[in-house]
Amino acid sequence: MGVMRMGFCHVKVMDLAEARDHYVNVLGLYPTLETDDKIYLKGWDEWDHHSVVLEQGGVGVVSHGYKVRHESDLEDIEHNASAFGLSTQRISAGEHVELGDMVRVHLPNGHDADFYATATQLGVEVGVHNPDSFPTDLRNIGAPLLDHALFVGDDVETTERFFTEVLGFYASERMIASHEDGAPLMATWLSTGNKSHDVAFLKGPDGKFHHMSFALKDWAKVTDAADILVHRGYDMDLAPTRHGITRGETTYFFDPSGNRNETFCGGYLMYPDRPTITWTMDELGKGLDYYKREVSGTFLSVFS
Amino acid sequence: MGVMRMGFCHVKVMDLAEARDHYVNVLGLYPTLETDDKIYLKGWDEWDHHSVVLEQGGVGVVSHGYKVRHESDLEDIEHNASAFGLSTQRISAGEHVELGDMVRVHLPNGHDADFYATATQLGVEVGVHNPDSFPTDLRNIGAPLLDHALFVGDDVETTERFFTEVLGFYASERMIASHEDGAPLMATWLSTGNKSHDVAFLKGPDGKFHHMSFALKDWAKVTDAADILVHRGYDMDLAPTRHGITRGETTYFFDPSGNRNETFCGGYLMYPDRPTITWTMDELGKGLDYYKREVSGTFLSVFS
Amino acid sequence: MGVMRMGFCHVKVMDLAEARDHYVNVLGLYPTLETDDKIYLKGWDEWDHHSVVLEQGGVGVVSHGYKVRHESDLEDIEHNASAFGLSTQRISAGEHVELGDMVRVHLPNGHDADFYATATQLGVEVGVHNPDSFPTDLRNIGAPLLDHALFVGDDVETTERFFTEVLGFYASERMIASHEDGAPLMATWLSTGNKSHDVAFLKGPDGKFHHMSFALKDWAKVTDAADILVHRGYDMDLAPTRHGITRGETTYFFDPSGNRNETFCGGYLMYPDRPTITWTMDELGKGLDYYKREVSGTFLSVFS
Amino acid sequence: MGVMRMGFCHVKVMDLAEARDHYVNVLGLYPTLETDDKIYLKGWDEWDHHSVVLEQGGVGVVSHGYKVRHESDLEDIEHNASAFGLSTQRISAGEHVELGDMVRVHLPNGHDADFYATATQLGVEVGVHNPDSFPTDLRNIGAPLLDHALFVGDDVETTERFFTEVLGFYASERMIASHEDGAPLMATWLSTGNKSHDVAFLKGPDGKFHHMSFALKDWAKVTDAADILVHRGYDMDLAPTRHGITRGETTYFFDPSGNRNETFCGGYLMYPDRPTITWTMDELGKGLDYYKREVSGTFLSVFS
Repeated sequence: MGVMRMGFCHVKVMDLAEARDHYVNVLGLYPTLETDDKIYLKGWDEWDHHSVVLEQGGVGVVSHGYKVRHESDLEDIEHNASAFGLSTQRISAGEHVELGDMVRVHLPNGHDADFYATATQLGVEVGVHNPDSFPTDLRNIGAPLLDHALFVGDDVETTERFFTEVLGFYASERMIASHEDGAPLMATWLSTGNKSHDVAFLKGPDGKFHHMSFALKDWAKVTDAADILVHRGYDMDLAPTRHGITRGETTYFFDPSGNRNETFCGGYLMYPDRPTITWTMDELGKGLDYYKREVSGTFLSVFS
Repeated sequence: MGVMRMGFCHVKVMDLAEARDHYVNVLGLYPTLETDDKIYLKGWDEWDHHSVVLEQGGVGVVSHGYKVRHESDLEDIEHNASAFGLSTQRISAGEHVELGDMVRVHLPNGHDADFYATATQLGVEVGVHNPDSFPTDLRNIGAPLLDHALFVGDDVETTERFFTEVLGFYASERMIASHEDGAPLMATWLSTGNKSHDVAFLKGPDGKFHHMSFALKDWAKVTDAADILVHRGYDMDLAPTRHGITRGETTYFFDPSGNRNETFCGGYLMYPDRPTITWTMDELGKGLDYYKREVSGTFLSVFS
Repeated sequence: MGVMRMGFCHVKVMDLAEARDHYVNVLGLYPTLETDDKIYLKGWDEWDHHSVVLEQGGVGVVSHGYKVRHESDLEDIEHNASAFGLSTQRISAGEHVELGDMVRVHLPNGHDADFYATATQLGVEVGVHNPDSFPTDLRNIGAPLLDHALFVGDDVETTERFFTEVLGFYASERMIASHEDGAPLMATWLSTGNKSHDVAFLKGPDGKFHHMSFALKDWAKVTDAADILVHRGYDMDLAPTRHGITRGETTYFFDPSGNRNETFCGGYLMYPDRPTITWTMDELGKGLDYYKREVSGTFLSVFS
Repeated sequence: MGVMRMGFCHVKVMDLAEARDHYVNVLGLYPTLETDDKIYLKGWDEWDHHSVVLEQGGVGVVSHGYKVRHESDLEDIEHNASAFGLSTQRISAGEHVELGDMVRVHLPNGHDADFYATATQLGVEVGVHNPDSFPTDLRNIGAPLLDHALFVGDDVETTERFFTEVLGFYASERMIASHEDGAPLMATWLSTGNKSHDVAFLKGPDGKFHHMSFALKDWAKVTDAADILVHRGYDMDLAPTRHGITRGETTYFFDPSGNRNETFCGGYLMYPDRPTITWTMDELGKGLDYYKREVSGTFLSVFS
C-alpha cells in the first residue's frame, strides 16, 4: 500500500502559548504556521510542512497521518479499508493545511488515521548541496523528527490486522497477556520499512494517546535531553534507559497539557523476514525499563 | 522489485586462517560454515545463514547479493534486467550454499549482483521471547550486521539507472565532478528502504571493491572499535570521524588481505520523497572526513 | 598529612569462588594473590599490588586503607589521631601482605582506617614507554581502579572532623537533615585532592559498608557495565543515572555476598577553595537519582 | 608549595570584538569584566573572577597564573625561585584586577608565571544548595573551565626542574628526542594534583604559546564541540581524537587571532607515586593522534 512513514500527530493542548514554549523552545521543533487555534511544527530534519499539529482545547490526540508514496495508493487504501470493514472518509486537499487529498480511516481502536501522498515541502536549513550534517543553532533538545507514536484502544488485534493485512506493515514485536495459548494481545509494534517500529498500539480505553516519539541521534543526546528537561523543572515519566522492546534508548515526559512525549534513539533494523519478537506481560518490566526491570506506575494507566 | 537489503558480500582473501582471525576474533562475526576454501559468517543480529563469504585466493570481491521479498521478484528482476540490457544468469538453489534460487545480474560496472528470496535462517542467540538486547559474550568489535558496501567501476551512471529504474532504489546522495552542467557522476549512494544507503558506487576501474561496512550501535562503539583495532596493530585507513556524506560515523581499516572494512553508525532516515543530496568533488574532503575536511590518500586510489 | 588516595577496601564474602567470579570475570579486576581464605585484586590502571581484598566469611567491610605520600606521615597521623582522641594501632610491614608499615585508626563511626606509605608496585600491562591507552583483553566491565567508598556509622560529624582537621581532607558536599539551624549532618563527601570525593560517610549503624566504587571512563562505559550486569542476571540497585551529589554518573549493584558495588564516572574537579555544596534530606532524591528524583528503597536501609 | 591549579591564561588577540565572539559565543565562557583593552572571562564551573584574559594587540601569551593555597606560599615561592636562580617580581593586589598579591617568576623558557593566593570569588549559577549539575542556558560549547596550557621555550629541562623541585609538581609524561642515552627532553607534562597534567612544556622558541585547554565532560561533548566549530567555519587543527599522551580526548583549533585552543576530556588520575611515562619522538604520532598515528603539520611548528 506504499505507506512511507507516520507523517504527523495532531494533538490537543490546554494552552497554546505554553505548548508552543514546550515544543519550540524545549523540544526544538520549528513552527511553520501559527493560526488562532493551531500551531504547525516540523523538526529540522523533516522536509514536509509539518509533523506535529497543536490545537487549542484539551488534551489527547485528534488524528494522525501516514504519508504514502503515490496518490493512487489512496484509492487502494480507501477501497481495502472498506473491504476490511472500516469506515472511511475523503478529505480534500488543503482541508488539512499544506497537505493534499486525504483518506481518513476510522481505526478499530477509536483513532482516526489520515493517509495522504502530498505535502508542501519546506526543505531543511542545511540544504541539499554539500550540506552540513545539521543546522548551527538548534534550540535545546533540537529534535530532528517525529519518529512514531503509541495509541491506546481496546481492539489491538483488529487494528494490527488492518495494518499488516491491508497496509503492509509487519509486526516487529508483540506483547501477549501470558504464556497461555490464546492469551490476548496487549500491544503490538508495527514497522512499514526498516525502523523497529513506525507505530504501536496498546490495549486500553479507546481513542487514547500514549505518546509520540522524537528521534535523537544517540544515547548521549537522549541523556542530554533529560538534563535539559529536569533543569527546566520537568518530571521524567521514564528516566533515561533502554527499552527491552525495540532495543531503543528512551526518555518519557509530558508536555504542559499532559500529552506524553518520548525522546528516542536506536532500535534495530527491521525487515519483513525478521521474525516477530514476543513478550509476555510478566516481563513488561524488562521490556519497558531494561535496567530497572520495573513498570513505572504510569505506563499502563496514564493516557491523554 | 522488492529488494530488502544487501544480503552478502563474497570476497577473496590471501590466507583463510588469517582472515578468519580478523573477521571472527576482531570484528566478532560468527562462522556458520567452514569448508576447505571458504568461510561463511554472520553478525549476531542477522538471521540468515551468512552475510560474508571469505574465499581463499587473492583479494577483492567475487560477488554480492541482495535479498528480495518474494520468489516472484526473481523473475521480474531477470526479465527487467534483460530488458535494461544487462546479461543475467540463473543459479540454482544450493549452488550458493544455504541460499535459494538466484538470479545473477552482470552490472555495468563489472560487478556481479546476485538476487535471492530464500536463505536458511539460523536465528540469533537472544531469541524471540522476551529477548535480551544483545548476546552476553561478543568478541571484540562484536559487529551486529553487514550494512552496505561500496563498489568501484567505470559506468556509475548506468549502474545507478539500473538500481533506481529497475530495482526501485533511490539515490540519497550523489557526487558529481564539478559545478558545471553535465559534469560526470563520480559516485552515488542508493537506498532501498529507510537507511541512508544500502549500496554505493564509485567511478574507477571496473570490478573493484572499495569497502564493506558493518553497522555498530553508536559513536561510542565506533570509537571503541578503533581502540580494539589499533591495540592489535591495525592501521586506520580513516580514523574515527563523521562522513559528511550520509552523516554516518565511521572508521576504515583493511582486513589482512587488503579488503577495506568499515565500522559505521548513524546516518539519517531515508524515504523516497527525501530529495537527493548533491556533492561536488571540490567538497569531497567535507563529505568523507567531516572534521578534518581532507581526502585521505587512499580513498580514491586503493581498491581491492 | 599527605593522604594520596583510598588504597584498598578489604571486605568479607560468603563464598570466595563466587566472589572471584564476580570481581575477576565480571568487574574485570586482576587477581594478584590468592591464599586459602583471601583474594587480592587490582584494576588494570593501578600500580600497587592490590586495591581490593576479599576474605572468606560473611559480608561487610573489614578495614580500608589510605596511601600516604611519605613514611613520616604515619607518625604524624598516629600522633594527631591520638591527640584527636582516637585509638590507634601499629601494624608491621607485611602483616597486610605487600604493604609496608601501617597505622590503624579506629574511626568514630566504627570503621578501621589503615594508613601506609609503601606498597609493592606490580606495574601495569601497558607499561611506561610509548604506552597504549589500555590493555587489549579486558574482561567485561574491565574496571580500571578503585575510586572511593561510602561507609556507614553513627557519628558522621566527628568522623568528618577527623578527616578534615587531622588528615587534610575537605568536604566537597554535605547532606543535612533539614533546613533548620543545627540540623544534624547525615552524610559527607570528602576529597583529599582533585576528585569530587575520595571517601564518604553516611549516618547509620556503626561499622556498616554502603559501597565501594570503581571508576570507568565515561557514561557510555557506565551504561555498558549495566548491560553486562543485567545480561548476567544481576539486579541493578540503581540503574544507570547521574548523582546530583558529586555530579557523577553511576550504577549500583551487589556482589554475590551482598556488598554493594558502584561503577562510576565523572564528577567535577575539586580544590580546597571550592565552596562546599549543601544538600538537605528533602532533596536526597535529586542528589541520588538526578533524573528520577526518587530515593530507591535500599539506599538508606541496605548496608553490609 | 601549595599550587592548586593553573588559575588563568592571559593572551593577546588581534581584535577584541572578534575574540569576544569566539570565547563567549562559541566556547561559551562568561565575560566577567570588560575594559577598553581587556576582557576577563570564566567558565560556568569556575568560582574565581576569571581564568582567561584577552588583551587587545597581537597574538600569543602575556602571562599565566597559578593559584596557591595560602598567602604564605607566595613568600616561599619567591624565596625558592630566587634560590633556584630565577628572577622574580612582586605585583600588588589589584594590579591584576580581582586578584590578590602576586609573585611573578620569569621562567627559564621565556614565560612569566604569576602566583597568587586570593581571587574574588563570583560563584556559579547553580549555587551550592541542592544544585543542578549545570546551568540551563550554556552557549554552544559551554566550556566549564580552563584545564591546562602548553607553553613553548628552549629550556624544558630547567623549567621542569623548577616545577618539580621548587613547586612540587611531578612529571606524568615526558617526551625525549630518541632512544639514546642522554637524549634531550623535548616536552614534559606536569601535574600538581590528580589531573594527568596541569601544565606542559614543549621545546621550541622561547616565550611561545602552544595552546590553552578547556575541559569538557566527555568524548560526546568533545565531538559536539567539533561540530559546533566546523559549522561556524573553523578549521580543526586536530580533529576529534585521543592523545596517546595523557590518554585525553581532544580537539585543537585556533581562536580568530591564531591562539590555539583545545577542548579536552579524560586522562587518568595522577598521583605522586605513579611512575612517569616516557615517550620517544619516533612515537609522537601515537602520542598526539592515537588513531591516525601521525603528527599534523602544525603541532611542532605553529605557535603564537
